[in-house]
Amino acid sequence: MKSLDKIQAAIRRKGADALLVTQPENRRYLSGFTATDLSIAESAGVLLVPGRGTPLLLTDSRYQLQAEKEAVGFEVLLLQGSLLEGLKRILRRRGHRRLAFESHYLLYGAAIKLMDLGQKQGIEMIPVSGMVEKLRIRKSREEIQKIQQSVLLNESVFQEVFAHLKPGKTEREVALDIESTMMHRGADAVAFPTIVAAGPNAALPHAVPTDRVMSEGETIIIDMGLKLDGYCSDMTRTVVLGKPDKGIVKIIRLVRKAQRAALKTIKAGIMAREADRAAREVISGAGYGKNFGHGLGHGVGLAVHESPSLNRMRRNKLQAGMVVTVEPGIYLPGRGGVRLENMVVIEKKGCTILNRDKTFLDL
Amino acid sequence: MKSLDKIQAAIRRKGADALLVTQPENRRYLSGFTATDLSIAESAGVLLVPGRGTPLLLTDSRYQLQAEKEAVGFEVLLLQGSLLEGLKRILRRRGHRRLAFESHYLLYGAAIKLMDLGQKQGIEMIPVSGMVEKLRIRKSREEIQKIQQSVLLNESVFQEVFAHLKPGKTEREVALDIESTMMHRGADAVAFPTIVAAGPNAALPHAVPTDRVMSEGETIIIDMGLKLDGYCSDMTRTVVLGKPDKGIVKIIRLVRKAQRAALKTIKAGIMAREADRAAREVISGAGYGKNFGHGLGHGVGLAVHESPSLNRMRRNKLQAGMVVTVEPGIYLPGRGGVRLENMVVIEKKGCTILNRDKTFLDL
Repeated sequence: MKSLDKIQAAIRRKGADALLVTQPENRRYLSGFTATDLSIAESAGVLLVPGRGTPLLLTDSRYQLQAEKEAVGFEVLLLQGSLLEGLKRILRRRGHRRLAFESHYLLYGAAIKLMDLGQKQGIEMIPVSGMVEKLRIRKSREEIQKIQQSVLLNESVFQEVFAHLKPGKTEREVALDIESTMMHRGADAVAFPTIVAAGPNAALPHAVPTDRVMSEGETIIIDMGLKLDGYCSDMTRTVVLGKPDKGIVKIIRLVRKAQRAALKTIKAGIMAREADRAAREVISGAGYGKNFGHGLGHGVGLAVHESPSLNRMRRNKLQAGMVVTVEPGIYLPGRGGVRLENMVVIEKKGCTILNRDKTFLDL
Repeated sequence: MKSLDKIQAAIRRKGADALLVTQPENRRYLSGFTATDLSIAESAGVLLVPGRGTPLLLTDSRYQLQAEKEAVGFEVLLLQGSLLEGLKRILRRRGHRRLAFESHYLLYGAAIKLMDLGQKQGIEMIPVSGMVEKLRIRKSREEIQKIQQSVLLNESVFQEVFAHLKPGKTEREVALDIESTMMHRGADAVAFPTIVAAGPNAALPHAVPTDRVMSEGETIIIDMGLKLDGYCSDMTRTVVLGKPDKGIVKIIRLVRKAQRAALKTIKAGIMAREADRAAREVISGAGYGKNFGHGLGHGVGLAVHESPSLNRMRRNKLQAGMVVTVEPGIYLPGRGGVRLENMVVIEKKGCTILNRDKTFLDL
């Protein structure tokens, strides 16, 4: 069943006449319209998906050609004034009585205006959350292929930049190299701001690249991802220029062991927190439990962070077709850090690693 | 008076005990905390500004060092769990009874949870909009200096890329060159996705760069901006490789004339629409009124699009210290387009152009 059919069935089950889709990845997922938004306040368009019948894409003249070409099966309507004015006319014409909207991606001020409109026109406005995200959580074969391509391009960018990595460059220079290589190699966009964190900065899981010059012997965490055909990749490698000391090699091997333990455990049917626990037990067992301060991973798809979360709280079951990161780490404040992140597809009896790069494994 | 003092006075005037600041540019403006958000759902922190006394910056451990260093005069509190849980404790401890929040930058779902919390704790939650933006609209001397630096860096990037522009390159290649040059020359970030639109694509005011190869004789619109020290620049130049034909030269001169008319008109005290009209009359007078489909300009500061809007509807008065773009254009469907955009500071008796680049003027 196509995702559009599925969401229309879900809209009918909610008792709604239509769903207003404002979340940009949901818009792309359902319609194929690839435009991106400058910000939540400057949208490239919204979908109005009825429980039955032809869905609408509301956009403006800037996106007309692109919308008509990409949003196959959608009727493209061009807004002249504001979205609210456009909706007013359309809702009246279509006779909708119950309109669901995405409460997790509509600003409060806009939602209040929408509800005022509903009150005037006798339309019940129903806040819903995660209806489309629920469909996005399990990837189709085509989506997995696209994610695989994104992962492979990301790896080839890493390898190209890594080949020229040498002491004396700053974190920021390397991050810029990575991002401009991504774009020149055909990525749609950077999936998230690239992290290059060396020495003590590597002890911060979400460090921002600084002008600090990298030296031999220190750990360098490179966490990078790109979008290709809309789909994200997300990979972390920890590298050492020159010869790492024995202490670092020990930590690197420990993180690798934790990752292997998680990969062996992950399969459809287990709880998300069981995957997290498999890695955490290895790290805690070696006395570094307090130095692994984040969860094991997260879903990846059209968004770089999406459901499911893999952390020690989550009791939700993993399902076949989910694509998640597996990224244990150990951070030693003031000294350095090690993180290894691969992406996997969850399957009935295990999981398939989407990464090929073995840079981490040569120590 | 400092912006923090001004906003505290405004909070007291609203009868609120404090304002919750969620909008990222507002957060930076008041606190100096420079972190950026991955998305509206993944915030680097929020401010809780009381009507009197020390304001708080609520963030998490990832941003601790940066927050403490940058947010001078703020108390930095680290959230352990969700923002809502943190707020619950803080609001109780501080005894706030009336909390204003930014209705234009809080998701509906989050606002509802905040209001539920208010109901449980007997706190009135007051939606407000634009309180901080109202302060941001007139720039201080320091802000104007920063914007000037941003404009000059943006121009030097343009000139560097323009020097190597030649037929045979694609729009996308040139846009990538521009963006990677910006970053290598020290910009914080790209202010908005760079537009490079040649030939018929130049007829679309918001074209996305394509793989179309640029040829001699066609108009190429380059609309680019960067952030430097947080402040945005935004500039458009229309260039022609080789010799432009006479028809194009005529259009370019007309746009230039329209811009000059607007620049002569702009000063504190006139209505925004009067500035728009000055340019529009020149273009309409020559028979191209229908080919200038957008407004004359917009405010620029920490955000690339902010108040005031300069278009034919706006009756708001221009004030000294506003920084706005002046960007008339003429678009000929199927053929090409011309836009010229400079930034100016509005003053009592006129305006000062922040741009130095004369590329447009050599025809």
